[in-house]
Amino acid sequence: MLSASSTPYEARLAARSGGFDAPTADVAPGFVQGNLAVLPRALAYDFLLFCQRNPKPCPLIGVSEPGDPKMPALGRDLDIRTDLPRYRIWENGTLVSEPTDVSAFWRDDLVAFLIGCSFSFEEALLAARVPVRHIDQGCNVPMYRTSIPTTPAGCFSGPLVVSMRPLAPADLVRAIQVTSRFPSVHGAPIHVGDPAAIGIADIAAPDYGDPVEIRPGEVPVFWACGVTPQSVIASVRPDFCITHAPGYMLVTDIPNGSLAV
Amino acid sequence: MLSASSTPYEARLAARSGGFDAPTADVAPGFVQGNLAVLPRALAYDFLLFCQRNPKPCPLIGVSEPGDPKMPALGRDLDIRTDLPRYRIWENGTLVSEPTDVSAFWRDDLVAFLIGCSFSFEEALLAARVPVRHIDQGCNVPMYRTSIPTTPAGCFSGPLVVSMRPLAPADLVRAIQVTSRFPSVHGAPIHVGDPAAIGIADIAAPDYGDPVEIRPGEVPVFWACGVTPQSVIASVRPDFCITHAPGYMLVTDIPNGSLAV
Repeated sequence: MLSASSTPYEARLAARSGGFDAPTADVAPGFVQGNLAVLPRALAYDFLLFCQRNPKPCPLIGVSEPGDPKMPALGRDLDIRTDLPRYRIWENGTLVSEPTDVSAFWRDDLVAFLIGCSFSFEEALLAARVPVRHIDQGCNVPMYRTSIPTTPAGCFSGPLVVSMRPLAPADLVRAIQVTSRFPSVHGAPIHVGDPAAIGIADIAAPDYGDPVEIRPGEVPVFWACGVTPQSVIASVRPDFCITHAPGYMLVTDIPNGSLAV
Repeated sequence: MLSASSTPYEARLAARSGGFDAPTADVAPGFVQGNLAVLPRALAYDFLLFCQRNPKPCPLIGVSEPGDPKMPALGRDLDIRTDLPRYRIWENGTLVSEPTDVSAFWRDDLVAFLIGCSFSFEEALLAARVPVRHIDQGCNVPMYRTSIPTTPAGCFSGPLVVSMRPLAPADLVRAIQVTSRFPSVHGAPIHVGDPAAIGIADIAAPDYGDPVEIRPGEVPVFWACGVTPQSVIASVRPDFCITHAPGYMLVTDIPNGSLAV
C-alpha cells in the first residue's frame, strides 16, 4: 500500500506488481516524475532532435538504449515496461489499449524517451508560497493548444501546448524567479497575460485538463507543457508508439532539487 | 577589415570571402560563438544522444538538417561551409587538412552540430568584475583530460575535458553565481580545488591550451569544456569528420544575454 512517505522505488515496485493503478501526483513527493514516449528506432533521431530544438516543452530527462527497457540512471532497477501504473498503446495514431504493463508489446527496436513534467516546479512554487490554483481546486491543470509553432525536426512538427496558472502580480514575479531555476522541467513562463495573443480563444475551455478560476486582479501565466510532444506524436501517427496514461507518470529516484540551477 | 565593432554577419562574410583568417575570441563581442562538429548522418543519432547525456561539456546550440549547410536559426544567411575562418578535415581520425572553406568537402549526408563555448560565460564573468587569468595573460585557457567519464552513447565515450580558471575565494563565489546562469554554455563549475581529485597529475602541464599562474590564496576552478566532444570524436575515428580549427569559431547572431536564465 503506497503512502505519502513511500519511496520512488516502492512506488515503481507497486506499479510493477499491479498493486498501484492511480495517478502519481501525490506519490513520492520531492522526486522527479516524467512523461513517457516510446518510439521505434527509425523515428528516434527525428524525435531526439525535436526535443533538442524545443527544450521548453520537451525537456529530456533520459533516453534508453534501443530495445533496452532498463534506465538505471533514472532509478534503481527501473524497468520502463512495468514501472508506470498505466500506459497507452498507439497504432497509426489510434489509441488501441491502456494496459498496466507493456512487456507483451516490447520490441528490440523501441527507444524510451522520458520528458520532465511540471510537478517538479509546482513543488518549488508551493515551497515559495506561490499558490497553485488547480492544486487548491483539486483538479487537473488547464492546458491549451496555441498558435505558437514548435521548431520542426524531420517528421515532427505542430503547435506548442501550454499549461496555465493564474497569479496575482506579486506571485507572478516570484513564480518567474522560481521556475527560471528549473530549465530542465519547462523553466520560466513563455507568456503572461492576454490568451488571444498566443491563439487561445477561450481561456475557460482548455483543450486538455480542467478550467480553473481566474480571480479579479490575477493574470493568466503560461508555461510550455509536456503534452506538446504527445500532441506532436499524435499528428505524425507512427505505426507504433507507447506513452504513459495522462497523470500516470514514471516516478524516478532523481530529487527535484538536483534539477535546480 | 574586421574591428571590435564588427557585427557577427560582417565577421561571417569576411571569413566567407577569405578576408578573415584568425581566431575569433575578440570578434563581435556580445554574441554566442560555437564549436563545430560535422559528422555523417550514420553517426548523428549517437552523437546527438551523447550531447543530450552530457549537456555540461556538449551544450548544443543547433543541429543542421542532413546535407543542408544553412542554419538560419543561428544567423542571417549563415553557411556552415564557408563562414568559419578555418576548419579541420579528419579522415579515420587523422587530420588531413586545415582549409578556410569546406565547400569542396561537403556531402549530402553531413550533419553539423554547433556546441556552445566558454566565451559567452567569460564575458559575463568580466562584466561581473571576476578576473579571468588567461585573458589577463593573453594566452589560451588551460584544458585537461580528467578521470571523470562522460556518459556513453552508442560509439561515443571517453573522459571529460575541463578548462581551468584560478580564482580568489570571493571571486569563486561570484563566478559560480554568474556561470550558473548560463547552463547552455557549460554552466557552473564541475570541480573546485584539488586537481588530483579529478585525475589531473600536473596543473602546470595542461593537455590543451597554455598553463596560467595560480597565485597564493587562489584555488583552481574547473568547468566542463567544449573540447570534450572533439576528444571523444577523435577516439571514435569516424571515416569522415569536419571540425573548426581551435579558436576559429562560428560567430552567431545570438546575443550572449539571451542564453542567461
